Amino acid sequence: MLYCYSNGHIIPSAEATVHISDLGLVRSYAVFDFFRTYGGKPFRMPDYLARFRNSAANLRLPFNLSDEELLNIINVLMTKSELKEAGIKMILTGGESKDTMTIEKPNFFVQVMELSELSEDHYTEGVKLITSDFQREIPVVKSTHYLNAIKLQPLKEKHGAYDVLYCFKGKVLEVPRNNFFLIKNDTLITPKDDVLLGITRKVTLELAQDHFKVEEREVVVDELQEADEAFVTGTTRRMVPVVQIDDYSIGEGRVGEGTKKLIGLFDQYIGEVSI
Amino acid sequence: MLYCYSNGHIIPSAEATVHISDLGLVRSYAVFDFFRTYGGKPFRMPDYLARFRNSAANLRLPFNLSDEELLNIINVLMTKSELKEAGIKMILTGGESKDTMTIEKPNFFVQVMELSELSEDHYTEGVKLITSDFQREIPVVKSTHYLNAIKLQPLKEKHGAYDVLYCFKGKVLEVPRNNFFLIKNDTLITPKDDVLLGITRKVTLELAQDHFKVEEREVVVDELQEADEAFVTGTTRRMVPVVQIDDYSIGEGRVGEGTKKLIGLFDQYIGEVSI
Repeated sequence: MLYCYSNGHIIPSAEATVHISDLGLVRSYAVFDFFRTYGGKPFRMPDYLARFRNSAANLRLPFNLSDEELLNIINVLMTKSELKEAGIKMILTGGESKDTMTIEKPNFFVQVMELSELSEDHYTEGVKLITSDFQREIPVVKSTHYLNAIKLQPLKEKHGAYDVLYCFKGKVLEVPRNNFFLIKNDTLITPKDDVLLGITRKVTLELAQDHFKVEEREVVVDELQEADEAFVTGTTRRMVPVVQIDDYSIGEGRVGEGTKKLIGLFDQYIGEVSI
Repeated sequence: MLYCYSNGHIIPSAEATVHISDLGLVRSYAVFDFFRTYGGKPFRMPDYLARFRNSAANLRLPFNLSDEELLNIINVLMTKSELKEAGIKMILTGGESKDTMTIEKPNFFVQVMELSELSEDHYTEGVKLITSDFQREIPVVKSTHYLNAIKLQPLKEKHGAYDVLYCFKGKVLEVPRNNFFLIKNDTLITPKDDVLLGITRKVTLELAQDHFKVEEREVVVDELQEADEAFVTGTTRRMVPVVQIDDYSIGEGRVGEGTKKLIGLFDQYIGEVSI
């Protein structure tokens, strides 16, 4: 049985609820973050918590637990839930509100859960993305605003796509739950503004420093067709190679050497931190 | 004690919850609607239900209750809750989802509640709006996306404003929970596209037909300063006169005769339907 932290209490995850008047539900006013363990240890937790604190502050949601308190909570939850490896989700909602507009008493939850790993062929064969014209409302904040992503699910299925690549006004932005990278010659390029700055994105840029020229900058849609390689990054699945976008192939339509190199570097890094 | 309808059951409203993995919470994937009674009878209920069904269909959320079934539910809830007059909220959420992306089994709630009436001076003195550059994500759908509205609460308070008037790319749109109207000479004007089409807005247009020239069309921001009168419409509070927007007065800075006329027509109409 999985356990969850709910406003100071450890409860079975199945019992973790919010009232239907919670601002997180009636006004979509909530932030969250999601990280994972390697070797049972939360990976790059200070980075995730810094982002979470930033999201909370941006929406004026008070949050007072220290990194140490959170680590203790996570250890208790993993032990009680008998998980050796876990995904960890923190959710901070606007809480119940008498006038449905004013923040009164936010609700905070920490969930631990099984990780949903991707089948190996995604990494060896690569995946397809489809583009969609959209920009998230407050891109730098990890809010719960994924209405558009859920709405586009049937379109993804229709096109056999792994996910959607948001582009807006001719600029390449992000995938709803991933960052986007492309490789052109020996240069690794990723959008910098109007996207959620992923921690896996950050680690990727660190690992790439000694092996690629690195550019964090505006990426225009026309660059997609000229790319040699592309991939997306995310917490659970690290790097997933992209070999097709809409109707055209990326590079030679198979997983490139640069992407393989970075996947290898990431695996090596995980090996080091999870000992 | 207030009672609530929750997926086929009548329960105390205080016990109406969703799990924290509900798509309505973790992905902001939910629609709602809100209407009220006059003389204990739901006002223009078919209009509200038609809009609710449209919102649900737009987000692919199945909804199968008939208007008659809903009216029965509301009558039971009002009787059990001992309410003579009520606000009625329907919420349809994406429901729990294993992969946090796929709609499996939506949750549907009907709440009855006390109405929050506005003090009389709002109607006699008029209110102030401040403009803000924003357009809602799917304007025609009554989704729970009010993150921006909650985020702007401190700005409203700072400026002593009743609410925010969303404008976007030079066009006047709507107030987060109200529609916006202006009067210029003998013409009543209101934005038509990229706004939620309110039922009070609809009734206002019906009532105005015999007394004003009526224009539903694009309204540009420059027209605000040239307006003789302005007001906002909403379910609970009907029409609230607007006498100031940002730093300038509307017309002579007091509630105008056209607005008073429409408030009178609305009161008369309510008197007729609530007998």
